[in-house]
Amino acid sequence: MGLGVVAELVRLGVLSSTSDHSSVVSINLFVALLCACIVLGHLLEENRWVNESITALIIGLCTGVVILLTTKGKSSHILVFSEDFFFIYLLPPIIFNAGFQVKKKQFFRNFMTITLFGAVGTMISFFTISLGAIAIFSRMNIGTLDVGDFLAIGAIFSATDSVCTLQVLHQDETPLLYSLVFGEGVVNDATSVVLFNALQNFDLNHIDVTVVLNFLGNFCYLFLSSTLLGVFSGLLSAYIIKKLYIGRHSTDREVALMMLMAYLSYMLAELLDLSGILTVFFCGIVMSHYTWHNVTESSRVTTKHAFATLSFIAETFLFLYVGMDALDIEKWEFASDIPGKSIGISSILLGLVLVGRAAFVFPLSFLSNLTKKSPLEKITLRQQVVIWWAGLMRGAVSIALAYNKFTRSGHTQLHGNAIMITSTITVVLFSTMVSHLVPIFL
Amino acid sequence: MGLGVVAELVRLGVLSSTSDHSSVVSINLFVALLCACIVLGHLLEENRWVNESITALIIGLCTGVVILLTTKGKSSHILVFSEDFFFIYLLPPIIFNAGFQVKKKQFFRNFMTITLFGAVGTMISFFTISLGAIAIFSRMNIGTLDVGDFLAIGAIFSATDSVCTLQVLHQDETPLLYSLVFGEGVVNDATSVVLFNALQNFDLNHIDVTVVLNFLGNFCYLFLSSTLLGVFSGLLSAYIIKKLYIGRHSTDREVALMMLMAYLSYMLAELLDLSGILTVFFCGIVMSHYTWHNVTESSRVTTKHAFATLSFIAETFLFLYVGMDALDIEKWEFASDIPGKSIGISSILLGLVLVGRAAFVFPLSFLSNLTKKSPLEKITLRQQVVIWWAGLMRGAVSIALAYNKFTRSGHTQLHGNAIMITSTITVVLFSTMVSHLVPIFL
Repeated sequence: MGLGVVAELVRLGVLSSTSDHSSVVSINLFVALLCACIVLGHLLEENRWVNESITALIIGLCTGVVILLTTKGKSSHILVFSEDFFFIYLLPPIIFNAGFQVKKKQFFRNFMTITLFGAVGTMISFFTISLGAIAIFSRMNIGTLDVGDFLAIGAIFSATDSVCTLQVLHQDETPLLYSLVFGEGVVNDATSVVLFNALQNFDLNHIDVTVVLNFLGNFCYLFLSSTLLGVFSGLLSAYIIKKLYIGRHSTDREVALMMLMAYLSYMLAELLDLSGILTVFFCGIVMSHYTWHNVTESSRVTTKHAFATLSFIAETFLFLYVGMDALDIEKWEFASDIPGKSIGISSILLGLVLVGRAAFVFPLSFLSNLTKKSPLEKITLRQQVVIWWAGLMRGAVSIALAYNKFTRSGHTQLHGNAIMITSTITVVLFSTMVSHLVPIFL
Repeated sequence: MGLGVVAELVRLGVLSSTSDHSSVVSINLFVALLCACIVLGHLLEENRWVNESITALIIGLCTGVVILLTTKGKSSHILVFSEDFFFIYLLPPIIFNAGFQVKKKQFFRNFMTITLFGAVGTMISFFTISLGAIAIFSRMNIGTLDVGDFLAIGAIFSATDSVCTLQVLHQDETPLLYSLVFGEGVVNDATSVVLFNALQNFDLNHIDVTVVLNFLGNFCYLFLSSTLLGVFSGLLSAYIIKKLYIGRHSTDREVALMMLMAYLSYMLAELLDLSGILTVFFCGIVMSHYTWHNVTESSRVTTKHAFATLSFIAETFLFLYVGMDALDIEKWEFASDIPGKSIGISSILLGLVLVGRAAFVFPLSFLSNLTKKSPLEKITLRQQVVIWWAGLMRGAVSIALAYNKFTRSGHTQLHGNAIMITSTITVVLFSTMVSHLVPIFL
């Protein structure tokens, strides 16, 4: 009996140390690759064709190839892409930092245009892509996809990637375009959440006026409550830090409190089924406007740089991850029996994204220009082209949504679903690579 | 078929959103409790009887009671204590920051004494506790425990808690004692790792000279290679940042690189089965001595405060976690059939810890004093008592080791093992609470 227990414990020890071991190996690899990305990104800083995110994407792809070869084609990634991990840990610091560092004056001056683009524009894009997908894909033989799937495709490819936008447009060089495109991306998230929830709850066969009204009411509720939650968290942190004079004893407490309350606002929004991105974005704005001025001088320097650093690490990690995951052999095997079809579908989707975006950028810019008196405030045709082009990127948000819809915990067995996943990855890789040419237009 | 797929997807969506939901709830609760700990810790700052860690421990206990009542006695914690989580995420920032902020002059002046305490002292303590446990427990009826288990108990209760020490002694008030007790805790970790590995690999029935020599050689190898790895990582980061002048383009890259390379050194040490604590501690020392002087001014402020903040959050989280886990109903049910026995065992273990520590602090202090010429450098009897008392705390490291040895992924079914877990928790709670009275001696 005694020996049995020992054997049991040893076996347990070996087992647990093995599972521990593989996670230790993958963490080591990821951290080492992150360091490599940072150093390479620094060395390539002056090169206008590549930047940190493209470097990370390419390093991720190369690592995927190496792993694929060493495991003899079994797997290309160390971690399975998990949308939980993405939404819970990677996205909040990126969006919070964007709100924290945004130029508030520029942002609020264009608030109406941003909301118009983010809400109405996303809806137009969603309908264009969904209708196009129904019209084209239903005539092709790509497995079992129904109306719900086509609408989901519309929602997935209407979700712009605010993270990529941050990498392409620069706040200091083109403040108007930056605030328009990035602001649109943030509002777009709220619209996407409403769309996704609506698609899961509504009966798709009976669409009438009440459904549409319900949908609109839902959107307004979500938009307002998410914003209010973010503003409230920001103000609460400012009040606590000022009233209790937290910095009197230790600056670390101030920084920790700001970090934790920002994260809490995001998680609370997720808990209440609101748009966490919208909440944490507004929390960042309020914190930089009020809380930041109540903390000690060293906390100001620390928060400004620490938030930027965390966001920077999360972004690099994200691109590394997407690059490594792109070669996932399982989905490609399912989709690769007719390689031409996969390429065809990706091209059609890219075309639909282009058309869907053009269908709202130009008309809505025209509408927005009607309300402006000064010609300086109007959006020129050249700027409209840049907005159209810069927002084309589909990034990790699209991938996360596609995985959520078409796979079960990272794996898929259905032909049609596998094709949709590989097409999403192709569109994301292609649009990210191509969109980085946008600075050449500017 | 089409409907089946939809039903499947909806089911999947519901399932994944449920698992997602529970983790979102627990993250919300933990972050909110962390904020509460920070605010309460600030309000109680002037009170010398409680501090942040005790506050976190008590809040954790109270939350455990509330959860126990709301789940009707099913569970007291939201997350199962996982030693992976502890060793991979919580410990590295705490130990790195300790190395980063340590007073290097004081530390290296007492280096020999620290090594003596950490290496020889831990061995003396280990043998005392193991022999005591064999002598006393084998006469009591507490389930199936063999020699390996008793030796493991010796190792578990010889692991001092360097995190707690940081909370009790203050570097500015008592620099000599701080560097002695904390330094001992760091070296102690290397000894514990060797002990644990040795216990798992050696045949316990044949202990002769070669085994002992093997053991000593192992310790020297581990100590030297861990230290060298830490020093090398620190120097490499300094070289890269200086040579490539990373700060030229962005200060965020400098901070990110320092953070990532420190973490990489810890994970590499874990990968190579070295002592990660020792490695990251020396990495912190080298980084604060070389790398820190090569970065831009704002990076200096940022790293100093950001590392302290991360360490602070990790510490608070840890105590919250231990407090919440202490009420785990499963282990108490197994152990509670004879409540008197559990209390008896805890008292015996506490007594053994006291004796085991006294058995090396006073003799080794005497030896150390023989080598010092100036009477100012000698350790007075009063200081010896403080060292003896301050190092009594057994903390999260002991709990992690006990869980590793006596449970299988957080659950246990054996009577003897359950008693050992509950006794460890009792000893940790009691010693942490009592040891915070140590400032009264000073």
